[in-house]
Amino acid sequence: MRIRFQPYGVRAEADGQPTILEVAQRVGVEIESVCGGGGTCGKCRVIARGPLTPLTAAEEEALSPKEIALGYRLACQAAVLGDLDVVVPEESRRSRVSILSAGAIEEIELDPWVRRIPLRLAAATLADQLPDLENVQRAAEAALGRRVHLTLSALQQLPSAMRRDGGQVTLIEVDDEVVMAHPGAGPARLLGIAFDIGTTTIVGYLLDLETGEQLAVSSQLNPQTRYGDDVVSRIAYAGEPRGLRDLQQAVLGAVTEIIAATCAEAAAAPHDVLAVVVVGNTTMHHLLLGIDPTALAQAPYVPAATSALRVRACELGLGIYPDAAVWMLPNIAGWVGADTVGVILSSRLYQQDELGLAIDIGTNGEMALGSRKRLLTCSTAAGPAFEGAQISCGMRAADGAIDRVEIDHDVRWHTIGEAPPRGVCGSGLVDLVAGMLSAGVLHPSGRIEPAEKLMAAGRPELAKRIVGEGRSRQMLLVEPNDGAGGRGLTITQRDVRELQLAKGAIRAGIEILLKELGASHEDVRVVYLAGAFGNYISPQSALAIGLMPAFPNARIEPIGNAAGTGARMALLSRVERDNAERLLAHVEYAELSGRPDFQEQFAEAMLF
Amino acid sequence: MRIRFQPYGVRAEADGQPTILEVAQRVGVEIESVCGGGGTCGKCRVIARGPLTPLTAAEEEALSPKEIALGYRLACQAAVLGDLDVVVPEESRRSRVSILSAGAIEEIELDPWVRRIPLRLAAATLADQLPDLENVQRAAEAALGRRVHLTLSALQQLPSAMRRDGGQVTLIEVDDEVVMAHPGAGPARLLGIAFDIGTTTIVGYLLDLETGEQLAVSSQLNPQTRYGDDVVSRIAYAGEPRGLRDLQQAVLGAVTEIIAATCAEAAAAPHDVLAVVVVGNTTMHHLLLGIDPTALAQAPYVPAATSALRVRACELGLGIYPDAAVWMLPNIAGWVGADTVGVILSSRLYQQDELGLAIDIGTNGEMALGSRKRLLTCSTAAGPAFEGAQISCGMRAADGAIDRVEIDHDVRWHTIGEAPPRGVCGSGLVDLVAGMLSAGVLHPSGRIEPAEKLMAAGRPELAKRIVGEGRSRQMLLVEPNDGAGGRGLTITQRDVRELQLAKGAIRAGIEILLKELGASHEDVRVVYLAGAFGNYISPQSALAIGLMPAFPNARIEPIGNAAGTGARMALLSRVERDNAERLLAHVEYAELSGRPDFQEQFAEAMLF
Repeated sequence: MRIRFQPYGVRAEADGQPTILEVAQRVGVEIESVCGGGGTCGKCRVIARGPLTPLTAAEEEALSPKEIALGYRLACQAAVLGDLDVVVPEESRRSRVSILSAGAIEEIELDPWVRRIPLRLAAATLADQLPDLENVQRAAEAALGRRVHLTLSALQQLPSAMRRDGGQVTLIEVDDEVVMAHPGAGPARLLGIAFDIGTTTIVGYLLDLETGEQLAVSSQLNPQTRYGDDVVSRIAYAGEPRGLRDLQQAVLGAVTEIIAATCAEAAAAPHDVLAVVVVGNTTMHHLLLGIDPTALAQAPYVPAATSALRVRACELGLGIYPDAAVWMLPNIAGWVGADTVGVILSSRLYQQDELGLAIDIGTNGEMALGSRKRLLTCSTAAGPAFEGAQISCGMRAADGAIDRVEIDHDVRWHTIGEAPPRGVCGSGLVDLVAGMLSAGVLHPSGRIEPAEKLMAAGRPELAKRIVGEGRSRQMLLVEPNDGAGGRGLTITQRDVRELQLAKGAIRAGIEILLKELGASHEDVRVVYLAGAFGNYISPQSALAIGLMPAFPNARIEPIGNAAGTGARMALLSRVERDNAERLLAHVEYAELSGRPDFQEQFAEAMLF
Repeated sequence: MRIRFQPYGVRAEADGQPTILEVAQRVGVEIESVCGGGGTCGKCRVIARGPLTPLTAAEEEALSPKEIALGYRLACQAAVLGDLDVVVPEESRRSRVSILSAGAIEEIELDPWVRRIPLRLAAATLADQLPDLENVQRAAEAALGRRVHLTLSALQQLPSAMRRDGGQVTLIEVDDEVVMAHPGAGPARLLGIAFDIGTTTIVGYLLDLETGEQLAVSSQLNPQTRYGDDVVSRIAYAGEPRGLRDLQQAVLGAVTEIIAATCAEAAAAPHDVLAVVVVGNTTMHHLLLGIDPTALAQAPYVPAATSALRVRACELGLGIYPDAAVWMLPNIAGWVGADTVGVILSSRLYQQDELGLAIDIGTNGEMALGSRKRLLTCSTAAGPAFEGAQISCGMRAADGAIDRVEIDHDVRWHTIGEAPPRGVCGSGLVDLVAGMLSAGVLHPSGRIEPAEKLMAAGRPELAKRIVGEGRSRQMLLVEPNDGAGGRGLTITQRDVRELQLAKGAIRAGIEILLKELGASHEDVRVVYLAGAFGNYISPQSALAIGLMPAFPNARIEPIGNAAGTGARMALLSRVERDNAERLLAHVEYAELSGRPDFQEQFAEAMLF
């Protein structure tokens, strides 16, 4: 069977009875799929012409009769029975996401754990037949007051290196291992890469380890999304035959591409990279290392390892210098990972006397509250709503996403890239709901008010946007004429409920941490907003919908991709890396699942 | 061009102008070549029919006019110009050599450095969300009083291992690394292999590390011989483009095959092998590790490393368990390697109060003299003569080699495998020369006596065997009718001179060591004969030709392949491995080259 994907012109061959999505993934055609092929998100709409299996119940729920008449199918549901032409409409295409790469490196002192050891070696004589390695040891003891340990690669390089430049040789030491022996002064630069491996996005920062200079940044969608957009569906996939291997290979592939891209930009070779620091949530950590994450998804939610781990690049098959060190910063718990450690490290929360709160909303929402005395963390699965999942009009922060909304007598919006609107991303959604609240479109319970009530309140433009009744009531956000592909956008009562669940979970998490610490809103002196929250979501709107409480005595500091900043700090400084390791002992984790007080807080926090 | 090798029926294709030897090596046809293709040994005779380059000077020297008329060529000299039929005569074929694998393990206490750590792990709970690794650490501290370090492989295995058998898990620790996490009681056996990597022969011993039982032995010719039979020609080859890589791949290939063969015999998988100990001379050590040995062949003869090294199997690409430890025992110096350390270790020379001498003649000849107070070693390049190189009728100890000779009124010989004689191996050569001496065929200066003198002495049978005059004089050893392929065997004046050089070097080495130690022949209480010397060469004949002095107060102990025995001891016992490591500091090396007193001793020791 031959399948052609338009507008890409990509052709595929298939046999058996694969779904359109499976064929697309195999040939690299990126189709949006939030639920990972479960038929529940309705994002993978395609227009297909040719023999297919009959419509499923999931499709009949997700697609309108008009769409069905036009040939729309869900790519994850429709299985191929013969030659096929598939059109991937714009709204179903994956596009490059706007990546957070702000987050300047904090002022840190360079304390490199990759360093040069320049030595001048005496020539051996018949009277003193000094083996090369012992020659190095003598010189190292004289220069450093200690012996050094050479890896096999370094030992292989030593004989020619020390004879090429009159005995002048430069060893490159990574932690306590000399991994390279170079003639003369050694390589021009010593390079390292810090990775923030998010559920959705992977960012890599290539740094000069001796100057701290950032040479290049590159990012990619995490290709594991093809196996599910959220952590839970990926853990489920990891349990299938070859699932763990697929997931590990996917993330390693993206990491390898980012290494290649950043090195190309810096006119370096991947083989020159000697050190890597990785942060990510605990599941990403396990999948990168090829460790089965199944136990993370079942009570009692136990990770295989939380302590910082050091592996060699060659053990992961990374195409950098084989003896390069890959440091995985520690995880706090199964659902609070090294990314949160990066946030705590770069925000300095753990060193401050004053009480501070850090909130990092990515695909999951984690938060940390405390000071140098005591520091508590928790996690909520609240993030996906802010990345477009579970929201009918939701999408990631990509071109065509509505990222700003204002509502007064009518609705005004702004899209990323000034493109025709394709959906609403997290910041737009928070603005939208905040605006609906202040304009009286939403009742504080979260109910969308009927059109008559808005008419009576003197808001005729808004009243005209309300359609449907009860649970099916919705507000028209974008007229079909204005939307991408002639599709309008609406926010439904169910969308509002999803947002309520998400913001309620985060708010309840904050309240539980305060309670655990015996602190009140007034005690918090600083609020760090990390990730999407810090860079894109309007703090005013977040306060307006009650996503976080008003902290009357706190200053609010957006800190960008603080997880990545923490990784960069640990890459440049042994002291900071040690600090990150020690955080494991300092930081406490509050498990929210099964706590009655969390359920109470949650129910309350869902209201506006 | 098509080349056919008989009697094997092997066909090859070639272009360019390769030598017959090069084509043969490429397709795996083993042709004897002692000098490594230099045209000097004359061992690679083949009968070739087809277009070839003209006879070289080397061929005209090595081949008789009759042989040339019969189509004999030296495979290393004749280059192929067109389709060719090549017959490899029996005397030019490589055959399996008799390998030393006696040398029983000394009585040692098992002190395994690969061991099981059985643990019962408590199940984590919501109240104590113990990460798997921390769970292991707690149990290890309770059981062992210390923490353990898991490799990535072990960590990958841990989550499923500890959940499969109710928390009962067995860790396998190699030195200070847990490399495997296994459910229940762990694998049936823990396996290790000890290797003795000789210039000519590689032997591997598969052992059960927990019982000490030897499960299988296997040996191979070192396939590096295709790049030269002696260490010096291999070092030269290592300096050519890709030469080092070729040599490393060759030895790794043989090692891999030996692993496969021994594991098959023991019904085990190579992946089950967790530990390897390697001894060999310093050049073999460097080549196995992929370290350029060039400096070993140039004054001041400096090795890259002498200290014991530990690498992971995966770093060498060995197909055993990737995290298995490969221990390279220390080298004493550039020309006294870990094989001598193995001899010293297994002979216990370094622990004894009495003065002992150990002599190990393989492809090189090394010796060690001393006691627990002081121990001296030296090396002579004397071995090849005892393995057939540089001797016109010489060959390795393989089927058809004359290994015993007696001379009274006439000559009697015995061959390995009772086959028609193809040549004389080391033990036969020593017997032969000893017999010639005692029968008066040889003058104490080494001159072959003229036939008339033997007639006068009443030895007509022997006199009839003497042909030629002066430097060309030779003694017929085997009549053409009795020899393999109808070829007779003679020992020439030049052969006797070669043996004199070899035995003189060894004898001079012994005398220098005695002198350095301030000891006399009377002080030596034990003489250990290792390697071929110990197993095959008759001590009486060795004494008769003066290869070693008569030690009036010494007992003589053959100790078999003592180098391999030492490797097995270090494999089974941490204490013995540590002893081997410490030998590096205890054992001294006497460099003989450039010493005037060695030259004097050598000149004197050449006489019979």
